[in-house]
Amino acid sequence: MRKNIAIRIRPFADPASPGTEISRRPAPDADSVQAISAIPGQALLTVAGSGMLGVPGVAARTFAAVRREDISVSLISQASSEHSICFTVPAEHADRARTRLRETFQQEIARQEIDGVDVITGAATLVVVGMGIAKTPGVAARVFAALSEADVNIIAIAQGSSELNLSLVVDGRDVTNALRAVHSAFQLSKIGGGRVRSAGPTDVVLLGYGRIGRALALLIARQNAGRLRVVGVIDRSGFVFEPEGLAPRRLAAVGAAKARGKSIAQVAGGRAGGATDAVAFMAHHALGDPILVDVTADDTTGTLMAALAAGMHVVLANKRPLTGRRREYDALAGAAAAHGRRLLHEATVGAGLPIIDTVHKLVESGDHVLRIEGCPSGTLGYLFSELSRGRHFSEALRGAVANGYAEPDPRVDLSGLDVARKALILGRLLGFAGELSDVAVESLVPSGAARLPLAEFLERLEEYDAAWTRRAEAARQTGVLRYRTIVTKRSIRVGIVTAAGSSPMASLAGTDNQFIFTTRRYREHPLVITGPGAGPAVTAGGILNDVLRIAGG
Amino acid sequence: MRKNIAIRIRPFADPASPGTEISRRPAPDADSVQAISAIPGQALLTVAGSGMLGVPGVAARTFAAVRREDISVSLISQASSEHSICFTVPAEHADRARTRLRETFQQEIARQEIDGVDVITGAATLVVVGMGIAKTPGVAARVFAALSEADVNIIAIAQGSSELNLSLVVDGRDVTNALRAVHSAFQLSKIGGGRVRSAGPTDVVLLGYGRIGRALALLIARQNAGRLRVVGVIDRSGFVFEPEGLAPRRLAAVGAAKARGKSIAQVAGGRAGGATDAVAFMAHHALGDPILVDVTADDTTGTLMAALAAGMHVVLANKRPLTGRRREYDALAGAAAAHGRRLLHEATVGAGLPIIDTVHKLVESGDHVLRIEGCPSGTLGYLFSELSRGRHFSEALRGAVANGYAEPDPRVDLSGLDVARKALILGRLLGFAGELSDVAVESLVPSGAARLPLAEFLERLEEYDAAWTRRAEAARQTGVLRYRTIVTKRSIRVGIVTAAGSSPMASLAGTDNQFIFTTRRYREHPLVITGPGAGPAVTAGGILNDVLRIAGG
Repeated sequence: MRKNIAIRIRPFADPASPGTEISRRPAPDADSVQAISAIPGQALLTVAGSGMLGVPGVAARTFAAVRREDISVSLISQASSEHSICFTVPAEHADRARTRLRETFQQEIARQEIDGVDVITGAATLVVVGMGIAKTPGVAARVFAALSEADVNIIAIAQGSSELNLSLVVDGRDVTNALRAVHSAFQLSKIGGGRVRSAGPTDVVLLGYGRIGRALALLIARQNAGRLRVVGVIDRSGFVFEPEGLAPRRLAAVGAAKARGKSIAQVAGGRAGGATDAVAFMAHHALGDPILVDVTADDTTGTLMAALAAGMHVVLANKRPLTGRRREYDALAGAAAAHGRRLLHEATVGAGLPIIDTVHKLVESGDHVLRIEGCPSGTLGYLFSELSRGRHFSEALRGAVANGYAEPDPRVDLSGLDVARKALILGRLLGFAGELSDVAVESLVPSGAARLPLAEFLERLEEYDAAWTRRAEAARQTGVLRYRTIVTKRSIRVGIVTAAGSSPMASLAGTDNQFIFTTRRYREHPLVITGPGAGPAVTAGGILNDVLRIAGG
Repeated sequence: MRKNIAIRIRPFADPASPGTEISRRPAPDADSVQAISAIPGQALLTVAGSGMLGVPGVAARTFAAVRREDISVSLISQASSEHSICFTVPAEHADRARTRLRETFQQEIARQEIDGVDVITGAATLVVVGMGIAKTPGVAARVFAALSEADVNIIAIAQGSSELNLSLVVDGRDVTNALRAVHSAFQLSKIGGGRVRSAGPTDVVLLGYGRIGRALALLIARQNAGRLRVVGVIDRSGFVFEPEGLAPRRLAAVGAAKARGKSIAQVAGGRAGGATDAVAFMAHHALGDPILVDVTADDTTGTLMAALAAGMHVVLANKRPLTGRRREYDALAGAAAAHGRRLLHEATVGAGLPIIDTVHKLVESGDHVLRIEGCPSGTLGYLFSELSRGRHFSEALRGAVANGYAEPDPRVDLSGLDVARKALILGRLLGFAGELSDVAVESLVPSGAARLPLAEFLERLEEYDAAWTRRAEAARQTGVLRYRTIVTKRSIRVGIVTAAGSSPMASLAGTDNQFIFTTRRYREHPLVITGPGAGPAVTAGGILNDVLRIAGG
């Protein structure tokens, strides 16, 4: 008799064996929607007339007439104005029902008490099934909001008081859209889906759990419990996941294990697996507007694409995915836009300093950023400060390694690649169309030193002292040496300059970073931001600002 | 027979003569809600049973039975599962209807095909009336969302296909809440209210239309048409207002008139009136999440309070309302919180520089701001730069006036009051509990010069040169003179210091401002922001960032 349309939701399917439908949920939540289905091939009949109020028993006579034709009526709706009553019947019986009703109300129609009997064919009834729909404010609101956003026009509505379902008559052509919209609003394809989620915490998944990731987890637990919660942590070996939030104690235990050199797959509750699979697994659960935070230094583009496609926002401290091929960069930005997700990355440049945000705010308020000059390397900043204080290159560089400012192999810093990546990120914000290979980089690795074993390189550092001392002394005539990038829409250069005493760069000290924005409005006098641009605490702070921006709005 | 509850909305009342109800709107919008009313004293009867599907003509027999008792049925709802049918009757007839229905279905009840007849008393029917409710996706969604937010539980729903109304059965105790919620969601008390507003532009009202206000209006017209629109402009004389947005040409014409010295009350379409009355008048119209932007330098607290109470957000470039009595400051912040409105004021300190935002971001991400040092006066910055270059005080000050850096009476700048206000705004963000009078200010107005007529003061400037030259020369031994504020939670000081060469302040040039944030994370090396801190373009940019923050989220 009644035929359900092909699209049917399996809300409680076991992800381990797709296709298995678990018939009943153990303890359904009071505010859950369990399924939505559609009954196509319906016709909506309406008996209407401004004189109906005075006609006794219209409802009774209507249904008696339909009954005599042995036609089954499903949805019935009469709003309290009593100017009309409408109901659905299978489309093939619509004509017969109309004919019989016209006969029944012949006299009232003649007296214009009843206008007639209207038929809308090609209709479908959507049935939203769930426990306590009638008792839970918010379920109906979510359903209607989802349909409204999908631009689905609702022709009639009925929800009985003891009912577990809400029925809506829509145009048959809107059925697929309508199912998809409700399905998505209640995350019916996900484990734990179906509940109304609105004021709950935003879920955070950490990709990478080194010093920055652990600092961030701690910050979230201390400062933002209730608003944010960490539900998953992924490293190269595997992941831990708890859809109701990983307890701070558990996060600390995982962190301690990581600090001892263990991998996440080895900790209690840890599962082995690749990052992209981990994201797919987590995305299968009903999470609260989840955010994937990438604090690795790996090429994670594939994982990020999967996360965006699964409906996660992405926050990056990792520069790699933003400094790969232009095509990949565009694909990432495009995926975020296509899925309506945010892709934020304040911490990729200057750590917690408001650099990316300042570019966005200037552009958003109608300014044009003409040029960004920057000294975004704390390591090289330290090196050049020391050189200008008269220290030898070898001493200064060994000091940088000893203080943890430089990588164990300081040639990584000296190569300028890290500065080039930051510069490319800024450049792409300004519209720079090129690749990392188009950034002109002056490497500070002495020629011939690139291929030396590390120990030998460090041993022979004194060989370079004389040349560096000469260079620093020559610069002292007119200013101070700085390792600087200059970024415009058209070109990006990275290398050594002599900053004049009047330049903001001359006042830069120690490991501080500096960014100088020259814009149409800040043209004669630029906007300058200076301060520490590395370290777990400030980096985690910058990431948290991005996360809260998403969670807040 | 049917009695409507006392609360009734008059959506199209003429504001000029309150109480007059205009019976019919000339051309109602397709997506409008025109009124909501409630029918109290209803009972909801439900005939239900899992065997009902097999019982022929339950609907017909139900209504025939009720009809025989001569009881009028208003809302009817049967969801398509056909397990139940429900309808409302006046509460006083509920028992009679139930008895008759039990008799009617006696056999089915005995066979357990029908469970019985339930009655919910104390119910009420809400009737939402409007054109095209059934045809407009979004109207039902808004109604349900409003009721959900108000925590109103919907017992039954009916909306007929040809109907102009949507009927909802709710608990009678929820009626007042429900009416208020829908009323407010559709702004039914406002002129032009009733429409579904979601993706429309955000409306901006400018309080003050000097150089900054005009720069902002231009920016909005050029950069953000569609997202923002200026609907009203207010000055001390009166206002212009156009709820559909003032055309850029009109804004330019008003601006040109203002620049010629005319007041807004005198321009075409201008109305005379005080600012608070102007806000009240505008707030009576249905505006899109309106924002009042205060670019005056007046004490506008009363007007801002009225705007917040009327549901407007407030963005300030005006320092006065934030630097009055602590009690007023708290009242303003409290009113914003109570009405769920934003109160933003980035442009009050450092114009377009991200100063207030940086404080917020640091605090939000769990940092603690220990101290803010700043040189927030372009005028005094210029004066001290010139002094340190060896110019005479008299020359330098006259230069500042001639360049428009200083007020026509430069004693306003020399007094330090403007710096003290900025410092108090920063201090209050950090928790400073005191008043403007608690800020320790070193005035640069020479003793005895405060009461001189302006002309005489300017004529006698050379008298002060020798003392200033001595002071600048003495400073040169250890650094440079700066007019600085130092702000903590406990104290605020404003006055002259000698900045050592190693301080970021030493590198400050010309009219630039500078802000140095020392925080728990940025402790050894502070976060420093430097750049122009005044001027219409950068100030308008800073205001626009605040406005877009509200419009965007």
